[in-house]
Amino acid sequence: MEIRLSFERYLQQGKGKKEALYESLKELILNGRLQSGERLPSSRKLSELYGLSRGTVSAVYDMLYAEGYVKGEHGSGTFISYFRAGTGSVYDGGQSNGKTSPQSLPAEPPAAMSSWYRRLEAASVPRAARFAAVSSSPVPPSAAASERFCAAGSASFSHSAADTDNAMIGTLQPPPVQLFASGQTDFRLFPTKEWKQSLHASVRELLERPLEDGYRELPAAGSLRLREAISAMLSRERGITAAAEQIVVTGGSKQGLALMLQLLADERSCVVVENPGYSGTREAAAVTGASILYAEVDERGIMPSDWEAALAAVTPNRQFPTGAVLPASRRSELLDWAARRGAILLEDDYDGEFRYTGRPGEPLKSMDRSGRVVYLGSFSRTMYSGLRIGYAIAPDWLVPKLLRAKTFYEPYASGQLEQLALARFLQEGRYARHLGRVRRQYRKRLAALHRGLEKLPGKPFRWRPAHAGLHQYAEWTGSEESYVRTLETARRYGVAWSDGRKYRVDTNGAASSTPGALFGFAHLTEQEIEQGMKRLAEAVTAAAAG
Amino acid sequence: MEIRLSFERYLQQGKGKKEALYESLKELILNGRLQSGERLPSSRKLSELYGLSRGTVSAVYDMLYAEGYVKGEHGSGTFISYFRAGTGSVYDGGQSNGKTSPQSLPAEPPAAMSSWYRRLEAASVPRAARFAAVSSSPVPPSAAASERFCAAGSASFSHSAADTDNAMIGTLQPPPVQLFASGQTDFRLFPTKEWKQSLHASVRELLERPLEDGYRELPAAGSLRLREAISAMLSRERGITAAAEQIVVTGGSKQGLALMLQLLADERSCVVVENPGYSGTREAAAVTGASILYAEVDERGIMPSDWEAALAAVTPNRQFPTGAVLPASRRSELLDWAARRGAILLEDDYDGEFRYTGRPGEPLKSMDRSGRVVYLGSFSRTMYSGLRIGYAIAPDWLVPKLLRAKTFYEPYASGQLEQLALARFLQEGRYARHLGRVRRQYRKRLAALHRGLEKLPGKPFRWRPAHAGLHQYAEWTGSEESYVRTLETARRYGVAWSDGRKYRVDTNGAASSTPGALFGFAHLTEQEIEQGMKRLAEAVTAAAAG
Repeated sequence: MEIRLSFERYLQQGKGKKEALYESLKELILNGRLQSGERLPSSRKLSELYGLSRGTVSAVYDMLYAEGYVKGEHGSGTFISYFRAGTGSVYDGGQSNGKTSPQSLPAEPPAAMSSWYRRLEAASVPRAARFAAVSSSPVPPSAAASERFCAAGSASFSHSAADTDNAMIGTLQPPPVQLFASGQTDFRLFPTKEWKQSLHASVRELLERPLEDGYRELPAAGSLRLREAISAMLSRERGITAAAEQIVVTGGSKQGLALMLQLLADERSCVVVENPGYSGTREAAAVTGASILYAEVDERGIMPSDWEAALAAVTPNRQFPTGAVLPASRRSELLDWAARRGAILLEDDYDGEFRYTGRPGEPLKSMDRSGRVVYLGSFSRTMYSGLRIGYAIAPDWLVPKLLRAKTFYEPYASGQLEQLALARFLQEGRYARHLGRVRRQYRKRLAALHRGLEKLPGKPFRWRPAHAGLHQYAEWTGSEESYVRTLETARRYGVAWSDGRKYRVDTNGAASSTPGALFGFAHLTEQEIEQGMKRLAEAVTAAAAG
Repeated sequence: MEIRLSFERYLQQGKGKKEALYESLKELILNGRLQSGERLPSSRKLSELYGLSRGTVSAVYDMLYAEGYVKGEHGSGTFISYFRAGTGSVYDGGQSNGKTSPQSLPAEPPAAMSSWYRRLEAASVPRAARFAAVSSSPVPPSAAASERFCAAGSASFSHSAADTDNAMIGTLQPPPVQLFASGQTDFRLFPTKEWKQSLHASVRELLERPLEDGYRELPAAGSLRLREAISAMLSRERGITAAAEQIVVTGGSKQGLALMLQLLADERSCVVVENPGYSGTREAAAVTGASILYAEVDERGIMPSDWEAALAAVTPNRQFPTGAVLPASRRSELLDWAARRGAILLEDDYDGEFRYTGRPGEPLKSMDRSGRVVYLGSFSRTMYSGLRIGYAIAPDWLVPKLLRAKTFYEPYASGQLEQLALARFLQEGRYARHLGRVRRQYRKRLAALHRGLEKLPGKPFRWRPAHAGLHQYAEWTGSEESYVRTLETARRYGVAWSDGRKYRVDTNGAASSTPGALFGFAHLTEQEIEQGMKRLAEAVTAAAAG
């Protein structure tokens, strides 16, 4: 057991060697780094380490003994006997977290933060504030300071300081009411046993290889085997022809989104985002310093326009949050625009795997003939959210640049073991079977949700039935005031949807927005959905009465 | 098994439904996405998916049959019978990588890259070029365009386009000669069996928890248990008192380095880096757009000065690459400077765990009383390089900002399983025992290296014996020309050191640099070192004669 003393610091303060040793040992004991029952180094060892005579060390130990900090046990050394207040009086073997106490430091010295950080801070509000702000309207955007750069058919304004989905600061705070919250999946359907087998098999495989290989770094692009498995999966499931070399595995799809925007946009750029749209995309665009151009979304998805922009981030396969599937003609318009403008389309296929009926829309990526589409996917929803594996498929010319950016932060890929296990899980067909199973369940749950919405008193919501995804989007037919009142009443009844208003940014000239709701259903059984919808029906009645 | 057709695209080209189905199926077969032996969907399923009559689908299957693309097997469906040229004639169960061929896309369309990416590209040269350039001098820095911002006692110039350590583009290319290459550790000493136990135990633990916990995301800061274990380890080993809440686990220490610089520096900043120094630090500073201020290093480490800068990145515990241990007085000067200037010290303790004799230097972090030091550490050298786990310890005020930056890219931490296993490995004392074992071995190897260097004919190297780390730095006593000739000769003899010149940037006014060598020893047995040194002795003689 080694200890580190602040010996040097006491010397600098002008203390002698003996006093410095005494003070620095006492400090360790008083601040709890050395706890009752722990053994001090031998006087021989300490004298060697600090260039002191053994007599000096012994004298210091005697001083500590005299003051009751340590006790000696014959033949086995010197032990701490001081019980530090506030950490419990019994030595707990180092398991307690309270053992180390932070140095008291000034709250916030005036260090200048970078312009990047200031943009990051401005682009988002903490999650806690978002949940607290449920009854208020979205924050209006700031004035259009960046308008000079952008020109387009629809309104064009700078980024709003509205909320984001990803402002998780350190701790996880689930929203108070989970019923019908969006974006969730059902852990209960996950094939834990099969996944465990894949993980154990990968541990064995990794460490039974020749040592040089077993411990070798994964390339920044991710495990080749995983990329091959993703390539095969995408070919079957999404009609996307991508070689493993065009796929870059990322730490969740957010990393791919953030890096792509960082690569392709800066203070002189305009970036098109959908409105309403995923707030993480708005944030990633705003942080580059680019001006944001809000593209309106109608019931069929994003409305193409001849934007003067370098990049458009789109969700053609299932618009977020409305769920609209973009018609083929608009997809072609987007591709034509990108080719004409030399722009890039960022296709976020965030839940393309959850499709229950009908045929899938053809991804922009598979229609791309001029190398202008980057496709983003993720396993966080199809597997489980703790598994942070996403991927980006870039055109050939962009792959090395994306890798250069990723390499800048992480020369080699993280999560080697989970990547190998996922490759195995995919290649052995377990993933496809799992997806098939959850699709069958989610399809029934979506039907139960539709039945429940249908039965709400006065039919306060209007919706186009989704056939895919993890939530059903529904517009409120009444006033915003009645929407807020109903949402608040529902929460008191223990039911809540995700408030769709936070995905919309009000822009000058845009029609005033209709409040919308995201009803998550995937994480709830049919019975839970039925019970929840009954309670919601009661809440709707109560809110209408009150 | 599901397939995705380009049906839509053919419809848009004006083809009828039947022709579109025929063409899109044929395309899948011809490009190898459907391979010999695979079964096509039933005509019933395909007709449902694409809104076609079953008769249409059957007719298309008949056309494909007539042309030899498919064959029917009674009662079991329609199978592909076409052998695609170039992929082998036997269906390999989908294991072959050659199966998916990338669309042919233009090499590099003229999309505008961001200013961030252009800085990134300018800041580094690919690894291949570095190894090729062994015989040439370091690239001279470009003109001091950014001088207007910086002022200091020592020279101050913009970033050089010299090489970096981390420009790994996708694939791993080990240098041709590993003998005495620096930065390597010995996989053979790694306790594979114990690590495997920790991994398997973590798999069991993760998946045997209540489902809601088992699959829950790790916070962006990393596993709390791992941070607690790191906190305890740092307290013992390095005298750093840091609560788990002040520790942010990163994907290797490079991520921490890059994010810290991104948080604290921009185009208006000056950043101090050591010269010679780690090229990854120079790169991370240059990419922010900051002006680089090169601080000279003498035989005791960095020479403090009253830099007008926001941040200094330093290696006080073992200067990289020279190995100098910074005296306590200079450490105090650095801290005073940071407090006076409102600046931040980035303390990179890249190999502080490898210490063989004497007492450890006191980290700046443990002397920090004003919240101005960020400490960076890593497990990539003490465990193995494929495990991408590093950590940053930030002052209280900076922790939320660092987390905000990390969260922007990765809302939750990657590599959950490896983090849990490492926490276990640390807490069970296995890590400390492992470190103790490798220290004993490396100490002997370092001694063997010293003996070998001592015996080289004509004593061409001058060095101060290291007592720590993974390499011994040695200066060349002759001319640069003789240094290059000897290095080239040595490579022909199958021996090579890492060229220290690549860590130095020549600045106007600085004394011309002395060539230096980094001799890695940790990955070699004593016998291997002795044999290698014999060969090196021969090479030195040959180079001197030739």
